[in-house]
Amino acid sequence: MINPFFKNNGPFKISDILQLINLDDLKIVNDQKIADIKDLFTSEKNDITFFHSKKYKEIAKNTKASFCITTENLKNELPKNCKPLLVKNVLVSTSKVTSKFYPNSINDNFDYTAKDIAETKFQDKVKFGKNVLIGNNVNIGANCLIGHNSIIEQNVSIGDNCSIGSNVIIRNTLINNNVRVLDNCVIGKHGFGFFPINEKNLRYPHIGFVIIAENCEIGCGCTIDRGSMSNTVIGKNTFLDNQVHIAHNVKIGENSIIAGQVGIAGSSILGNNIRIGGQAGISGHLTIGNNVEIAGGSGVIKDISDNSKVMGYPAKNIRDFLKNNK
Amino acid sequence: MINPFFKNNGPFKISDILQLINLDDLKIVNDQKIADIKDLFTSEKNDITFFHSKKYKEIAKNTKASFCITTENLKNELPKNCKPLLVKNVLVSTSKVTSKFYPNSINDNFDYTAKDIAETKFQDKVKFGKNVLIGNNVNIGANCLIGHNSIIEQNVSIGDNCSIGSNVIIRNTLINNNVRVLDNCVIGKHGFGFFPINEKNLRYPHIGFVIIAENCEIGCGCTIDRGSMSNTVIGKNTFLDNQVHIAHNVKIGENSIIAGQVGIAGSSILGNNIRIGGQAGISGHLTIGNNVEIAGGSGVIKDISDNSKVMGYPAKNIRDFLKNNK
Amino acid sequence: MINPFFKNNGPFKISDILQLINLDDLKIVNDQKIADIKDLFTSEKNDITFFHSKKYKEIAKNTKASFCITTENLKNELPKNCKPLLVKNVLVSTSKVTSKFYPNSINDNFDYTAKDIAETKFQDKVKFGKNVLIGNNVNIGANCLIGHNSIIEQNVSIGDNCSIGSNVIIRNTLINNNVRVLDNCVIGKHGFGFFPINEKNLRYPHIGFVIIAENCEIGCGCTIDRGSMSNTVIGKNTFLDNQVHIAHNVKIGENSIIAGQVGIAGSSILGNNIRIGGQAGISGHLTIGNNVEIAGGSGVIKDISDNSKVMGYPAKNIRDFLKNNK
Repeated sequence: MINPFFKNNGPFKISDILQLINLDDLKIVNDQKIADIKDLFTSEKNDITFFHSKKYKEIAKNTKASFCITTENLKNELPKNCKPLLVKNVLVSTSKVTSKFYPNSINDNFDYTAKDIAETKFQDKVKFGKNVLIGNNVNIGANCLIGHNSIIEQNVSIGDNCSIGSNVIIRNTLINNNVRVLDNCVIGKHGFGFFPINEKNLRYPHIGFVIIAENCEIGCGCTIDRGSMSNTVIGKNTFLDNQVHIAHNVKIGENSIIAGQVGIAGSSILGNNIRIGGQAGISGHLTIGNNVEIAGGSGVIKDISDNSKVMGYPAKNIRDFLKNNK
Repeated sequence: MINPFFKNNGPFKISDILQLINLDDLKIVNDQKIADIKDLFTSEKNDITFFHSKKYKEIAKNTKASFCITTENLKNELPKNCKPLLVKNVLVSTSKVTSKFYPNSINDNFDYTAKDIAETKFQDKVKFGKNVLIGNNVNIGANCLIGHNSIIEQNVSIGDNCSIGSNVIIRNTLINNNVRVLDNCVIGKHGFGFFPINEKNLRYPHIGFVIIAENCEIGCGCTIDRGSMSNTVIGKNTFLDNQVHIAHNVKIGENSIIAGQVGIAGSSILGNNIRIGGQAGISGHLTIGNNVEIAGGSGVIKDISDNSKVMGYPAKNIRDFLKNNK
Repeated sequence: MINPFFKNNGPFKISDILQLINLDDLKIVNDQKIADIKDLFTSEKNDITFFHSKKYKEIAKNTKASFCITTENLKNELPKNCKPLLVKNVLVSTSKVTSKFYPNSINDNFDYTAKDIAETKFQDKVKFGKNVLIGNNVNIGANCLIGHNSIIEQNVSIGDNCSIGSNVIIRNTLINNNVRVLDNCVIGKHGFGFFPINEKNLRYPHIGFVIIAENCEIGCGCTIDRGSMSNTVIGKNTFLDNQVHIAHNVKIGENSIIAGQVGIAGSSILGNNIRIGGQAGISGHLTIGNNVEIAGGSGVIKDISDNSKVMGYPAKNIRDFLKNNK
């Protein structure tokens, strides 16, 4: 799939990439062109990838990438076709290389291509409010409404029968049919991801996007950040109440209900038919099973298996929690 | 009181209503016209009502409605004047009937009647910023200010000496005198209420509105949802800090102080002179007495009696909490 | 430093001030003019100050102010050059006097001086979106971007290389170089500070402002309130995620990372290199040391010393918390 939002500025010669990550001294036989940077699994020949944790050992063994940013400790897991590039901090080096391929994915400046919808091809196709702005190359399906002062940035795609509220900002997002996005949402900005370096943090690129499946409703004032290397996904028929925050790379399943002011930290994966009460928080990089219920105000800091009901901080079995907290 | 926000599309013949809730087979002598759908207490003759919980038994006994959507178990509580309509799920059937009477109360699309305030009768009466939009049939009192990019949707009423900030959206709301609504608030959208049905949730109508009494202040980025069958009410001289979320049907008394990022779930009733610290949460359908203090970050999951001070999650007596958490 | 945001309407005769705080009976020899109201430390001769807590005894002894609003209990701490004005409630009286000097600091009405940026001197200097509004006497440095529908109110100053998102409102704020403010933020409104008086709360003036140091990033939907008598400060290279609320007078150090939906209550002081997880809350008037880590969802209700890691509510040593909450 070609990334609809972030243009790949490559290919680049491997010598230029090596210079960028301070490996100028590395001897290379052939100064070949590198087409793209991808993860271990999706990389093809002539791509560069990265490998920073033993957790991905099995995938690393089969990568098709020609080069891999990694460490001394991990290099032996790579196949012969993939030359290891040894660095001190894999993620920082990866960030630098990704920035070279996708320079527009670092900072989210406003979309200067946006113009008044009345000057676009949507003037007769969409029912719209005052001061609606549409960027270049936007798609909007049949029978859609867009409220006052809303901004649909370049390359965004919206399905049929969608209702976008007022004061909404949507960028880097694919919205399917029958979705409602209520007022004041900001969807698709980069996540809160960077390497803390004193005096000047290094942002890493966010080349993923947001996918909102059909029949979803996103409440007022929600923020949904786009993914870094993968996407942020809201499954079909999932409803979010007001002031919910969904961080980058989060994936939420189908038919789920997320009440007001909930926050879900980066890269957590949630199953289907989940119910989360108001103000609950879910830490990053967790897996929450199907049919899970999380009581309002809970703080989830570890994985939760299918069909569980949890409560408290740290969240535990709801019966135990209530018994211990009479 | 005639609902100023949602037009009753009735009357409808009872035969049409029966068909809608799959009771076509029910024999009726007279295909009379039904004027409205209301709760057990406010219904009049020729109205239809609903009765889904024993809790309302005493009110049911005296309802004046001609028909009542209810269950086999509850039907014997109804008076002779009121014919029971037996269904499997009272609330789903009620939702369908309410949607028939009030189709515009389901989804909150933007107000397409809104136009630039400079083109309205308020151009000389109100002090306003750039790009202010006013819907049809709005009332605004003397000596009011409305900031840039704010949207006052149709039928909203604002009293005297009010200051509305910038980027504010107000719909389905009655605002009394001397109220300040700060920037980026969204007031009066429908609540987070629906019946979870796989593949497509069924929203129930919200025909209530928001009432903000005199001398209130609503902080930046707050969301206050309107009621479903009743109203959401903020009592006089009550102040809300930034990013507070008030769900549908909530009623807050007078002289209360609600700090930043607090969330109050649907249908809870709060007394007067209440103080709620930052980020506290109150579950739905609770009753909080007068003069109650709730410490910041607390999670209230049961009723609280007058003059209590509570803290923790679940919130308990503040002395006990602090003693047990040194 | 002259306050760039709030005009001092003084000087006023001391007799007028005495009348305002119901001290008309107090005998004064010379009806001198009072230039300003300041805190004990910064007051000069011909200023009026206030002293309401023993905590400030040492500073009180050396104040240069000519008059001081205080109580019977505290008056003897003041030097001879400073005449005590004895009142029942120091803060209420101080509020009244401050309101006289700075009447525009009480309520935050929209900035009616704002006009379309295309009509200002910034039309060629700044890269801007549609419907951007700029108030009187704004400064914007080189190489800045301002997104659609954003409002920069009068007297705000923005450094070089800054990127302001869309739907942002900035008032009473000094922003240094290389700062990014993302969409939907509201920065610089007055804090949630007032004296609860039945039927009509008395707001106290907020004559402080917000200072955002260089290299900061402020996430979407954040609110940062300005200070009352001092300023609200975000130290350099500090990053805030989405939906964070920073209350008045808060000072955050350098190189800190504050995740989504965190709330920091009024007047707390945070050190450098702090990390705060999502949804954590910090009570008011606390001191948080350098290099502190606060786990997501925690509630901090007392001071935290340097290099601590805390978790829970109330937040305690993270090891103890996890040991007790397996």
